[in-house]
Amino acid sequence: MKSFIKYSSNSDYPIENLPYGIFSTEEKPNKRIGVAIGEEILDLSEIAHLFDGPLLKDKQDVFLKDCLNDLMALGRPAWLEARAKLQHLLSDTTPTLQEENLRSKIFVKQESATMHLPAKIGDYTDFYSSIHHATNVGAMFRDRNHALLPNWKYLPVGYHGRSSSVVISGTPIRRPRGQTLPVEGADPVFGPSKLMDFELEVAFFVGGPPTNLGDTITAENAYDYIFGMVLMNDWSARDIQKWEYVPLGPFCSKNVGTSISPWIVTMEALEPFRIANNQQNPIPFPYLRHKDACNFDIKLEVDIKSSNGTVTTVCHSNYKYMYWTPRQQLAHHTVTGCNINPGDLMASGTISGETLDSFGSMLELCWKGTRLIHLKDGTTRKFLQDNDEVIIRGYCNGDGYRIGFGSCTGKLLPSYTFGIN
Amino acid sequence: MKSFIKYSSNSDYPIENLPYGIFSTEEKPNKRIGVAIGEEILDLSEIAHLFDGPLLKDKQDVFLKDCLNDLMALGRPAWLEARAKLQHLLSDTTPTLQEENLRSKIFVKQESATMHLPAKIGDYTDFYSSIHHATNVGAMFRDRNHALLPNWKYLPVGYHGRSSSVVISGTPIRRPRGQTLPVEGADPVFGPSKLMDFELEVAFFVGGPPTNLGDTITAENAYDYIFGMVLMNDWSARDIQKWEYVPLGPFCSKNVGTSISPWIVTMEALEPFRIANNQQNPIPFPYLRHKDACNFDIKLEVDIKSSNGTVTTVCHSNYKYMYWTPRQQLAHHTVTGCNINPGDLMASGTISGETLDSFGSMLELCWKGTRLIHLKDGTTRKFLQDNDEVIIRGYCNGDGYRIGFGSCTGKLLPSYTFGIN
Repeated sequence: MKSFIKYSSNSDYPIENLPYGIFSTEEKPNKRIGVAIGEEILDLSEIAHLFDGPLLKDKQDVFLKDCLNDLMALGRPAWLEARAKLQHLLSDTTPTLQEENLRSKIFVKQESATMHLPAKIGDYTDFYSSIHHATNVGAMFRDRNHALLPNWKYLPVGYHGRSSSVVISGTPIRRPRGQTLPVEGADPVFGPSKLMDFELEVAFFVGGPPTNLGDTITAENAYDYIFGMVLMNDWSARDIQKWEYVPLGPFCSKNVGTSISPWIVTMEALEPFRIANNQQNPIPFPYLRHKDACNFDIKLEVDIKSSNGTVTTVCHSNYKYMYWTPRQQLAHHTVTGCNINPGDLMASGTISGETLDSFGSMLELCWKGTRLIHLKDGTTRKFLQDNDEVIIRGYCNGDGYRIGFGSCTGKLLPSYTFGIN
Repeated sequence: MKSFIKYSSNSDYPIENLPYGIFSTEEKPNKRIGVAIGEEILDLSEIAHLFDGPLLKDKQDVFLKDCLNDLMALGRPAWLEARAKLQHLLSDTTPTLQEENLRSKIFVKQESATMHLPAKIGDYTDFYSSIHHATNVGAMFRDRNHALLPNWKYLPVGYHGRSSSVVISGTPIRRPRGQTLPVEGADPVFGPSKLMDFELEVAFFVGGPPTNLGDTITAENAYDYIFGMVLMNDWSARDIQKWEYVPLGPFCSKNVGTSISPWIVTMEALEPFRIANNQQNPIPFPYLRHKDACNFDIKLEVDIKSSNGTVTTVCHSNYKYMYWTPRQQLAHHTVTGCNINPGDLMASGTISGETLDSFGSMLELCWKGTRLIHLKDGTTRKFLQDNDEVIIRGYCNGDGYRIGFGSCTGKLLPSYTFGIN
């Protein structure tokens, strides 16, 4: 497959990828749907009328929206038709979009575009599905010999997050102030969080028609409801989290902000990188079982960019370390009848691998503050410093091409020093 | 104050109340904004042009919407102007709406209307702010002598809920199936929840303009963001909750469904029933302090209606038992910078009083299954049975009138017996 758009073999966005996003430009500030190809964006609002296949010809309005929810709602057969049409239109053997006047109108350079949240996120859920992460946290805070809690291998533990605080990559995050308990047994104190952390995650967007309250989706049927994936940084104030989270779970420590990458990589683009699920013992309940593999070889990296501009990669992980699959997460989420909507976001939880350098959070990399990370500029970290920028990258290596997620970035701003205390 | 609409002195909806809701009728199935008065609904979509005050004359379109979010966004000065206009128009001394032809067009009988969710709920949060409830739960499941967890008196504990599963009063709730651990140390089992419960709650809708991520709201400023209140039943599968909730909090046990009453009683209507806050010790951090009282004398009752139609009141409680005020809940919710939007819903948590008959859940009323509730039909309950209908009522007793919330009802349907297991 070859496109008339030129890009290098290590581009994140070859014709095999075609991720969807929402963008605007200075000249045309309305939000619209685009597809990334090489270093450009194909503006779907300009070519909606070309989706003339049997499923889309009466649904072209979904390409004219300011978010992807309506396209997501159409379901997989329509997504496949859209993908086939886009690959056809972008192929070097199809002249339609190559006509010079049209081409200048329908393509925008990524560097000149502003990206926005790709969907109106009705609800956001965060799972806890990496066994190495859950084991690390359990060993640190509970019991090294019984690090996993009794429920962990029976169900994909998760919790409802705050959808309003999900922001697009590039949005700065303010170091929060809140209550912490520096000395066990003493009184809590109020002030800026001292233990700001990232969490390396991958999240999927729900697609397909909305379900009704009371409906359930089994793992076997869940794939129909999975549209595509993004990178995520679930910013976490560890000291605030520790004081607040018993018994109802993380709250203000997490609604500080959760960043996602702007381009949704579809499951179709990830298909060549599907690998076997991890072995599960005990065998899960029937509602959580599925025949097809639903694990993916997605390489993940986290960089810290210090305020002086030095970039250090602090973590190499991989989506393949997930114990619970997205199908299982969705099946468990709906087992008691929770209704889901296109545009809902469901995240993996921190993805840690087996080795020290593959842990997906500072908490684990520095093992609760007992180890130092050495950055290339000679400084060290236990947690994030003010003005550190966290950059998450993800990609799948294909044969002569790669399926990239781009990056999910965010800079930690100093806390406010005035106002409430 | 007297209206030309006739109603009895114990009507929930006198001219002093004027709660907002969203309704439709068989003849006119589009959703529209109404105000309850006596046994009628004033259809605001028909009289939007009459809101001609300085703040509303250019914002009349908010009364033409299918949800209350835009009205909520306008803020308190506009809400006050709307209320004053409505009280004027409904007064027996104002002829405008009394003209016979108009009157038949703009009023709808409540019994002939279908009520809908009053707002598009972006995010839903559930607090845990009744000290008697938290103490009861702590005594039952942890340690009678240290029933409250260390953080409880320092911050209003809460968690993010599932906004998609918030439904309007009257929606039946299906007994869920899920994982439970009947025998500690043994393997979990899958099947219908055996411990279905209600939770008596009151929730407030957020109003005012959206805030930005990073913004904080102090308790002193929080009142500007509180639009009004509804009754809530936060259906809970206790056995599923117990197995799933460590360490990230309740999840599938709660997204079974959360019912709210359809009429939002405004803070202005509740003003005469404002009472002193409960004493707080220790004194909260400055961001949680506020001078004005923000507690309310709202009488609350829970009935169980058996499948044979017999109704038994099982709980008499009161909103006044809240330890943390709505201002404090909102201040804590935003202390780390979480952004809020008009239409967000924030619930009290189960409201239990001091006495046995004032506990706001079956869990507490039957003290973890060790006591029986005797219903008027001679049957007993420890938890809810299939086809039990739960009816929550709330009202404030004024001098010759009452401010009523109407009711929040829902019937527990038997679990599905087919399908996944």
